[in-house]
Amino acid sequence: MHNDIDILVSEVGPRDGLQNISSIMPREAKELWIQAEAGAGVREIEVGSFVPAKTMPQLADTAQLVESARRIDGLTVAALVPNLRGAQDAVRAGAHKISIPFSVSASHIQRNLRRTHDEMLAEIRRIVTMLQGVPESERPHFEGSLSTAFGCSIEGKIKESEVVRFAEQLLHAGCDEVGLSDTTGYANPVQIRRLIGAVRRAVGDDKVTGVHLHNTRGLGLANALAAVEEGITTLDSSLGGLGGCPAAPGASGNIVTEDLVFMLEAMGLKTGIDVEQLLRVRQILLDALPNEELFGFTPDAGLPKGFSHVGT
Amino acid sequence: MHNDIDILVSEVGPRDGLQNISSIMPREAKELWIQAEAGAGVREIEVGSFVPAKTMPQLADTAQLVESARRIDGLTVAALVPNLRGAQDAVRAGAHKISIPFSVSASHIQRNLRRTHDEMLAEIRRIVTMLQGVPESERPHFEGSLSTAFGCSIEGKIKESEVVRFAEQLLHAGCDEVGLSDTTGYANPVQIRRLIGAVRRAVGDDKVTGVHLHNTRGLGLANALAAVEEGITTLDSSLGGLGGCPAAPGASGNIVTEDLVFMLEAMGLKTGIDVEQLLRVRQILLDALPNEELFGFTPDAGLPKGFSHVGT
Repeated sequence: MHNDIDILVSEVGPRDGLQNISSIMPREAKELWIQAEAGAGVREIEVGSFVPAKTMPQLADTAQLVESARRIDGLTVAALVPNLRGAQDAVRAGAHKISIPFSVSASHIQRNLRRTHDEMLAEIRRIVTMLQGVPESERPHFEGSLSTAFGCSIEGKIKESEVVRFAEQLLHAGCDEVGLSDTTGYANPVQIRRLIGAVRRAVGDDKVTGVHLHNTRGLGLANALAAVEEGITTLDSSLGGLGGCPAAPGASGNIVTEDLVFMLEAMGLKTGIDVEQLLRVRQILLDALPNEELFGFTPDAGLPKGFSHVGT
Repeated sequence: MHNDIDILVSEVGPRDGLQNISSIMPREAKELWIQAEAGAGVREIEVGSFVPAKTMPQLADTAQLVESARRIDGLTVAALVPNLRGAQDAVRAGAHKISIPFSVSASHIQRNLRRTHDEMLAEIRRIVTMLQGVPESERPHFEGSLSTAFGCSIEGKIKESEVVRFAEQLLHAGCDEVGLSDTTGYANPVQIRRLIGAVRRAVGDDKVTGVHLHNTRGLGLANALAAVEEGITTLDSSLGGLGGCPAAPGASGNIVTEDLVFMLEAMGLKTGIDVEQLLRVRQILLDALPNEELFGFTPDAGLPKGFSHVGT
């Protein structure tokens, strides 16, 4: 899909960032943000979530954003869907990729989606059936995202055998791929390598290419490094680390796109992204969300003297 | 030296942290801090720098701190020395370990220490001669710290062959060991591995056991991970990341002790440090330095549910 880059950085700020802050970003600002990041070379952006507007008014314009983002050449437009209804809406809007969250933790899936594992698996099968009726050229890539894979703030430790088992079940139900998500920021580099290795051995490397990491305890980039070294080629991140948990001041949520891209490019891994141009996109967030805290160190420190990014 | 731990976390906050902030911490607070960290299991603390009080009033009480810290059982008391005079003072106070900064960058060594490489090497030889006259039981371990080893904010890139050459020269001059220091926060994990490997191959693994990393661009823990995997066993860090560069808001200087220890313990590497007790030491900094920004994510987020640290 992207033969000219080594790592696909998937921007999730417009979805995961905005859903975790109280400010509502106007659609025009979101479109400016998405266009500017795509302009800097970002190839995939999760623009929103197909949830009821009542539940998440911040993301009520997801369908319109999918439609406008589709007009950006070369951009994979992704969206989160919690259920069949959301998946139908995503297909209608024209999303290229949809992800459904599936908590490995039974307590978390109940609290987050109000379903049991079996109910969620049945819903996933209904989505797969629906997708089979969509013409292949319009059918989105369907990813099952295994949340709380590295630990759960309700249950604590999560058995790795459970993660493997549900990865197999999601693929068996018809997902094209599974992703591993450190929803709680519990992961450490050793665990990252061990779990990615275990799941890939069970289901095949091509069925697990991406991880969604958080920076809650500051280990985000160390975990990203471990994941890349374990063969992962897609990393989710959020511009300015947007989406810090409001309950814990200073506790950033997603890993910071700016720092991640700087690290990868400095390591000689091609992301297709122009780091200097990416750093300038941050101003859009500063202007549109004046009350939100942004994270990241590279934007303040600037690029090292003599740094030559690979760019596109 | 420490057979019961895997990684020695060397706290440098009382020196590198305090020298980079404008507040002056009262000696009583510094002693409380040092005692509390040692109480949490930290085995080595750099308590200050033997520079003229006029130049750095924040560190004017270094001799007294060395003397009081020496009374803490099992603690290695380290200090920085810029020259022979400082080394003599450090020996007199009873430091167990002294480090001298030696910039690989010719421009940086001139600006920082107002000496050329040759003048610094001559000074190091004078220190070695002085140390040879000290009874072995009182003679401190003498480390040459290769600063700007990963890049210089004046010169940009630093040739790795130069780092190797100066490592050899420092050891030839009589240093017991050399350390690699990412003074400018320019390093990335690939470079960390390559440079550590190159220097160790040239001078021997036992002559390069420690690195001093900064978190200026957010890569501090990723670099620490790479260093540990390359065989490094001593990592410098600062409680609360104290010492963020005042010129760049939010740009933390040293890597954060709390996050580093959490990462290492979570990975199953023994530090000898009780993480929960360490997190409580931060309150001493909050009380004594109310105007300084502290960094780190683990202190706000807390430890994962079910996290079992190895402790002492």
